[in-house]
This record gives sequence, C-alpha cells and structure tokens, in this order.
Amino acid sequence: MAIDWTAAEQGSVLKEFRPRRSVPTDWIPAQPGDLLKEIDTPALVVDLDKCEANIAKMMAAVSGTKVRVRPHAKTHKCAELARRQVEAGAVGVCCAKLGEAEAMLAGNVNDVLITNEIVGEAKMRRLARVARGYAPARVGVCVDNIDVARQMAAICASEQVVLDVYLEIDVGQNRAGLTDTKAIVELATLLNGNAAFQFRGLHAYSGLAQHRRGVPERRAAAEAAAVRAAKARDAILAAGVPCEVVTGGGTGTFPYDVRSGVYTEVQPGSYLFMDVDYAKNEQDTQAPQFDVALFVLASVMSLQDGRATLDAGLKAFSTDMGPAQPAFEGWRVRNVSDEHTVLMRSDEGTSIKLGDKALLVASHCDPTVNLHEWIVATRKGRVEAVWPIDARGKMY
Amino acid sequence: MAIDWTAAEQGSVLKEFRPRRSVPTDWIPAQPGDLLKEIDTPALVVDLDKCEANIAKMMAAVSGTKVRVRPHAKTHKCAELARRQVEAGAVGVCCAKLGEAEAMLAGNVNDVLITNEIVGEAKMRRLARVARGYAPARVGVCVDNIDVARQMAAICASEQVVLDVYLEIDVGQNRAGLTDTKAIVELATLLNGNAAFQFRGLHAYSGLAQHRRGVPERRAAAEAAAVRAAKARDAILAAGVPCEVVTGGGTGTFPYDVRSGVYTEVQPGSYLFMDVDYAKNEQDTQAPQFDVALFVLASVMSLQDGRATLDAGLKAFSTDMGPAQPAFEGWRVRNVSDEHTVLMRSDEGTSIKLGDKALLVASHCDPTVNLHEWIVATRKGRVEAVWPIDARGKMY
Repeated sequence: MAIDWTAAEQGSVLKEFRPRRSVPTDWIPAQPGDLLKEIDTPALVVDLDKCEANIAKMMAAVSGTKVRVRPHAKTHKCAELARRQVEAGAVGVCCAKLGEAEAMLAGNVNDVLITNEIVGEAKMRRLARVARGYAPARVGVCVDNIDVARQMAAICASEQVVLDVYLEIDVGQNRAGLTDTKAIVELATLLNGNAAFQFRGLHAYSGLAQHRRGVPERRAAAEAAAVRAAKARDAILAAGVPCEVVTGGGTGTFPYDVRSGVYTEVQPGSYLFMDVDYAKNEQDTQAPQFDVALFVLASVMSLQDGRATLDAGLKAFSTDMGPAQPAFEGWRVRNVSDEHTVLMRSDEGTSIKLGDKALLVASHCDPTVNLHEWIVATRKGRVEAVWPIDARGKMY
Repeated sequence: MAIDWTAAEQGSVLKEFRPRRSVPTDWIPAQPGDLLKEIDTPALVVDLDKCEANIAKMMAAVSGTKVRVRPHAKTHKCAELARRQVEAGAVGVCCAKLGEAEAMLAGNVNDVLITNEIVGEAKMRRLARVARGYAPARVGVCVDNIDVARQMAAICASEQVVLDVYLEIDVGQNRAGLTDTKAIVELATLLNGNAAFQFRGLHAYSGLAQHRRGVPERRAAAEAAAVRAAKARDAILAAGVPCEVVTGGGTGTFPYDVRSGVYTEVQPGSYLFMDVDYAKNEQDTQAPQFDVALFVLASVMSLQDGRATLDAGLKAFSTDMGPAQPAFEGWRVRNVSDEHTVLMRSDEGTSIKLGDKALLVASHCDPTVNLHEWIVATRKGRVEAVWPIDARGKMY
C-alpha cells in the first residue's frame, strides 16, 4: 500500500462543507426518581455517594500541602463531573485532546490543560481559536519539539492569543517528551521568551508507573519520575527561566508525587470511578482507599440452559484490560462479544431471571465511559440526574 | 454489593425529563476534494473503490441463487452505506440493537431486522412504536422465549402494530436461541398464530463459525449450523407452521451458507471493510476475496529517539482483536494506550517525520467504527464525501 508521507499541507479550518448530521434520538436511559432496576440498558451508572467520597478523599490527601489537583477529564468526559471536581477544590482539569478541551470549556470549566502535543497547522489554528474564544479561561498544551513550538507561536501570534504552554519531558513512559537536558533548556528558553506563550512549566507524567502492581514498585517508579522532573526543572531554573509548575502523576502514584517536593500539581483521573484494573494494584494502606463508583447496567436478554446472555458487550464496556465483571456473586463471565456478555453460574449465588438487570464493574473506566452518551447519576438506588458525556468520542 | 434482582417494572417510555445535551462541535475531519494527508486526525477513512468492489463481489456470489443478502449494519452503522448496499441488491439490513435500527430507519433504510431479543416492557414498547412510526418499512426482531413472546404480543396489540418476528435458534454459538425441538415448535406455533406478529422464520447465526481459521473447520461449522437449522425448520413445517426465511451466516461462512440449501438469507457485515482479524482466516480460493477498505488515519504527534507516537489509541480503534496495524512497511506497534499508539522502526522502510499522517488497519472493524462520529469516504487518495456514523453508540 503506497502512502504519501509528505507532511500535511492542511487547508483552512474555516470549512464550508457541512455534511448531514445523524438524526438524534430522544432516548435517555432513565428519569430522576427511577429505581436502579428501571434504568434502560445498556447504561452507564455512577454511584454518587461513592463518587463524591472519592473526590473528598483526593482533596483531603493534598490538604495542607502546596500541591494542587488537576483531575484528568479523559476519565469522565462529563462537564458536570468536572465542575464538581473544581467546586471541591481542583484547579481545573486535564484533557487528552483538543475536542475534549472544547467540550469542557463549553461546559464552563475554565482552566484546561491538554496533556498532549498538537501537531499540524489546522489543529494548531483550531487550538488558538478555541483559546481565544473562551478567554479569559486558561487553555494549556504540551510541547516537546522546537519546530512545532515555532510553528505554534506563529499561529498564536496571527490569531492574537497567548497560550499556556508546558514542556513535556519523558519521566519513564518512554513515549512523548524530551529527556536530553540541553534540548529541554533550549525549548524552555524558546517557550519562555515568546510573546505568544505563557510558559507554565513541565509536564512530567508516567502512565506506566500508575499500574505497577506492588506498592514498592509503584513508589519507586514515582520517585524515579520525580528525580527526572527535578533535574529538568533545576536545569531550566539554572538557565534563568522560571518553572512554576511541575504537573503529572495519577491515581496510582499521587501519594508519592504529592510528597516528592517536586510536583506542584497532580493529574489523577480514575480515582473518581475506579475499575477492575486499578483494583488489581496492591493497595497502599497509608493512602486513601477509593471505592468503585462506576457500573455498566445490562439486562438479561436470553436465558438458556443456565447461561445468562446480557445485552451489553464490548460496545458497552472496554475490554482492553479484560471483560467487565459482575458486581454480584455466583456468576462468571464466559465470553464477551460485540453486543453480548455471556454469564455462567460459578456457584450458589444470586439467582437470575430473564429481564433482570445486572450491574457490571468496568475493567478500564476511561474507554468504557467513552462508549456512552449518558451517565446516570444514582444515590441509594435511585436516579438523581442524567448527564451527557459531553466529550464522548471527542478524540480529535 | 447488594443487587435487587426483582425483574424491572419499567415506567412509560413517554419520558418528561429532558436533560441538557452536549454542545455539538463543528468539527468534521475533512472536506470533499481534500487529499488524504489533509484529513484531520484521528479519522476513520474508507477507500470507496475497494468498498464498492466488496459490495459487488458479495452480490455476485449470490447471483443466480435464491439466497438474499441482508448485510449487518452493526459493521458500518452508517445509513449512507446501508442505502448503497440496498441499491446494490441487498434486501435490507440487520441491526444489533433497537437504537441502531432507529438510526437506519431514520436514514431511509426500509427493511431492518434486529438480530437480537428485546426484553423489558419499556424497550418492547419503544420497538412497537418505532415499527408503527416507520410503517410501511419492515421491522423484525428475534424471540427465543415464550413468555417474552406473549408480553411482546400484548404490547404490539396495544400499540396497534404487526411486527416481523424470527425465532432464534442456537446453531453453535451457545449463546441465545433455542435448541430443543419441542420448544421450537411450540414457540413457532405461538408466533405464527398471533395477530400481533408476522412470523417470518428462523434466525440461525453462529458468530463463532465465522472466525474458525481453517477453511475445512469453517465449512464444517457452517454445515453443522445448516443441519441444525434444517432440523428446526422441518419440525416447524411438519407442525403446519410456515417457515419462509432462514437467516444467518456471515462474512466467514456465507459461501457455505449460500450453498447449504437451507439458508434463504445471509447476514455478512465485515466483508464491506475487512480487518486484521478476518485476514487471519485461511482464505477459501473458491470464495470471493474481499479487500481491506477501512483505515484509521493518525498523525505523528511526537518523534523521539526513533519512536513515533501517533495521536490515535484505543479510543480511536478497538483492541479486542489486538492493536491496529500500520498499513506501511518498516514499523511495528510497540504499544497502544488510551490516546496513543507508539510505533518502533522494525527495519528499513518508510521514513516518518513529525506531523506525518499514518494509515492503520483496524484489527476489528465493527467496534472501531463505533468509536467515530464521521467516516471519510475517499477515492484514489482524495476525499469524495464525509458521512455521519448514524448509529455510533446506539447500543440501546
């Protein structure tokens, strides 16, 4: 297959063509006041008591420190939940993508950091226009390349906007980000000296560290990341460039990031909901214990020979960390396909009838949320509200 | 965790509460006339020449037989592509879910079969109202339980609609569907004798058979399914109940299903796009060879130490059958995370620059399509159209 690898010469983002949009449906999974069993399926359900407790535990964990919390909105993609995090004391949110940031800004979340690089003129220009359009809301972005920085500066200048920029360093993820001290100082100097930018500091996130299973390994990975971040920060400061912020860390490592003396900001996302994968981490008894607050509700659509087929499959929950798991005893997942999960009885436990509703715990909350249009907020078994997943599918 | 397993007592589907919807963004990935490299990323891209050839090959394969093609719309979820399949001779489409069926009906696809059971009063009532609202379009659904059939009949009667119904039998998937001949005849008799239903025949699909790697194993699984379908059909006919349709089969088995003399209709979906997983099947040289027509386009957003980080991860393509694969030589996937794919150079091959666009082949086309809002239709390297994925996320 022949690919033209010429760098994109993208056209204007002021597009003329407006294709037909899908016809929206009126479907919503529930009404306020509904019982859990009355929610239509498949549906994403959050237990508000547990979710609010998770938010409170996170804020308590940084209380008395100078470390701010900037929760990652890629987990929930829901402006209502982002606003609740900010009301509880978060400085703003992280977003993975520009489209996600747009959705949060549109939902009155006024401090957004895009934790990735933006390349290509069209997308840079869109970023600049979003930042200008939502000013005085803060919009930040990561940079790890000097040519990209120069191109972005020119676009921001032409769009008459000043953008918050963060220099991304690689602290163990081995993905994006600089490691070479000379290159870091050179880029920081450029970012700091350009009138199109407000240079905020370092983006220093290691996703791999979050999922190291043992507490000692997780703590060691976090400490190693902090050492690399400190080295980069000190080199920048030594060059006379300010470095106010060092942001990174997540649900798995934030206790160590907070204590590091290096990070000024942590970016936990999954703590809000938790999932099967995070539950596999050895728990640090010194750290806050978060509860699972997110579920996928499914219906038993067929019951044959003792096996129960649910109406939710891998289009209703992500399986990259394994299948979702029943939140009840006596049944195990036999297999998951696009639209179905088949449960088999594993021992004496809950009895299942055709039409029953089953709560499942997602194995990986972020991509599971991304599959749904709505999140049903429940408290003590009743629906309190139904919120749109504003940034669902906004991967661009 | 305590779950209330009482069967759902669902309220009316005429809901009053209308929550705030997400603010739509104006983003579309491309304009007609754009070059491939000008498409914004991540984007879903279809090669129209290849896709149209796949459609033509499928229709040629049933030409001269009495077997109809009812492509599965869960693959593409796009009304425009469904209409093109129907224009090429398909009898209508299959849908996995009621929400998907609504999206197809809204897009002027006038013969839709929901290849699953619908349970719960609220969803049954919605189904009845959709069928009534789009009449004279045909709407069919599967049934595998006599109590569900009775409940559905009562709801259809109260909604004054006659629904196409298919009795689902289990022909090897070991999921939904009846196997016991006595139960099959009893249910068929009820379905055929009820004025709320138009009994069409049997739904006899085995998904497992589609993915058996060897040709002999795949043929054997298809033949075994046909034997079970014939047995059920003959028992129904012997009871004096008509059985006009036997529908099932897919991209992996349709040559054998067509020749079986049992199936009157086949339900291939993936043939339209193909993917890495289907390419792992041993190809039957006697059967049509379909080409990969679907790609995920990503941008190189970071380039460090010879590794290229793309701006598309498992929120842009499904990984349940493994990661998407580069459609070019010299690079391999190191890992995929939520928003990123990291490519490593495997040998001499294509050179990659920051900002370049990379075409990836999805490992599993159906759940990959489901992640996207738009599909960019290209021909000979230029954008011809951009279509909404109408049923994206319509899992309910």
